[in-house]
Amino acid sequence: MILVADNLHIMNPNVAKALKEKDPLPLQKIAERCKEANAYAMDINLGPLKRNPEGVIRFVIEAVQDTFGGRLLLDSVQPEVLKAGIAACKRPPIINGFSLEEAKVSFILPLAAEYQTEIIGFLINEKGQVPITAEGRLEVASRLLAKAEECGIPLERVIIDPVLVPLAWQDGTRYNHEFLEVIHLLPQLSEKPIRTIAGLSNLGASSPDRAARATVEATFIHMLAALKLDYILMDITHKKALNALNLSQLLLGNKVFAWEEVKSS
Amino acid sequence: MILVADNLHIMNPNVAKALKEKDPLPLQKIAERCKEANAYAMDINLGPLKRNPEGVIRFVIEAVQDTFGGRLLLDSVQPEVLKAGIAACKRPPIINGFSLEEAKVSFILPLAAEYQTEIIGFLINEKGQVPITAEGRLEVASRLLAKAEECGIPLERVIIDPVLVPLAWQDGTRYNHEFLEVIHLLPQLSEKPIRTIAGLSNLGASSPDRAARATVEATFIHMLAALKLDYILMDITHKKALNALNLSQLLLGNKVFAWEEVKSS
Repeated sequence: MILVADNLHIMNPNVAKALKEKDPLPLQKIAERCKEANAYAMDINLGPLKRNPEGVIRFVIEAVQDTFGGRLLLDSVQPEVLKAGIAACKRPPIINGFSLEEAKVSFILPLAAEYQTEIIGFLINEKGQVPITAEGRLEVASRLLAKAEECGIPLERVIIDPVLVPLAWQDGTRYNHEFLEVIHLLPQLSEKPIRTIAGLSNLGASSPDRAARATVEATFIHMLAALKLDYILMDITHKKALNALNLSQLLLGNKVFAWEEVKSS
Repeated sequence: MILVADNLHIMNPNVAKALKEKDPLPLQKIAERCKEANAYAMDINLGPLKRNPEGVIRFVIEAVQDTFGGRLLLDSVQPEVLKAGIAACKRPPIINGFSLEEAKVSFILPLAAEYQTEIIGFLINEKGQVPITAEGRLEVASRLLAKAEECGIPLERVIIDPVLVPLAWQDGTRYNHEFLEVIHLLPQLSEKPIRTIAGLSNLGASSPDRAARATVEATFIHMLAALKLDYILMDITHKKALNALNLSQLLLGNKVFAWEEVKSS
């Protein structure tokens, strides 16, 4: 699994402060940590931007892209933010993302076509809902890929996110159990490989217990690795979860195994 | 995943001592711990028995079966041990197991037919080897199930073990990565469900580091749970691995989730 960091998020107080004070340093520190964790890409989620959205996204990208050195995911529902972000990126960005919701299909999907970027497709239907069953989500995936294709975006440029939900939801475990089933069954939709991503941080949303969150994240990392998920979007400061990712790579890496590399955490 | 304990093993010094001194107490202690761990079944592996094999297996089964209260796996390559074991069991035992090796097909498989027991089928070919690729192992599975059927044992009474190997083997990670692929692909062999089992303790064979072994076992438990393995054969004294099993059951159990039940270990 390929690591994508979700630390540059508006909910991170350091990010909020940096934006307010127009200070690139806290953003660069986050970028450095993501680089040290060997993240392949970094998700940039600044929440809804009201004042000067183009200027803000440009400021953030210019602050972090050289320090980080990897790819960026532009995580926004504002087409103007995505457009300015795409223009500011030195390396091909990934748009994060679209769904079957009208606004996403009309205003976001066409940007991926116009700028030939990769784009994440959430298995969320027209009403903004994640179907609980794997069957329901596969049906959404099928229509999502068809929409992308109509729009001139081939399957190779779409990365499917079947949406992990907070475990504390009433049917949280059921939703996430079905997520695994989606990953298992998704290859049946096409003869070409369909890439997949999961956002781990959702699992523990609203849980105050950081250790328990990291334990649960570590568990899902192993499960998702076994099912051959392609990209994992996660908090790289959760050491236990990061160790789990490294361990699953060690165990599934087909390299010579050495017990010394197993770190208990 | 259903828990099967592998603690009643001749390599366990308490077991060796109990047999030597004909003392049922140490065996009953093991049976109690297996019961406390909520094991569904217990594997009995006494190694090759030379003197009075029938008497020894009878002594062990009589010592543990009431204390434990669950099912027993009779893990032996000696038909006379299996036969005496089957006769001594109050609950239906499971024979562990057969492969395509001549002696197993000729002398062990027929016992499962005669006594209508369940039997574990190892994906080991005529030469006693585990094919490295998933494709090779599926081919063995196909012939194994055909042999069982010829012998009058329907697929419903066979549990397939695709054989986890020691990670320290030269191609250990590759072998075990392919194991996961076998679990993934096995359902394609039949329209009926094919049950599966994995023996976790093999992974760390020869490793002196108990903590590292338990970490690796915990990782495989999550991976195997995600792939819907049916039975997991493991050392129930590895607390970290047992916690992992409970956590995967919590996360995949479709019950209401409670953060309080997540124990970090």
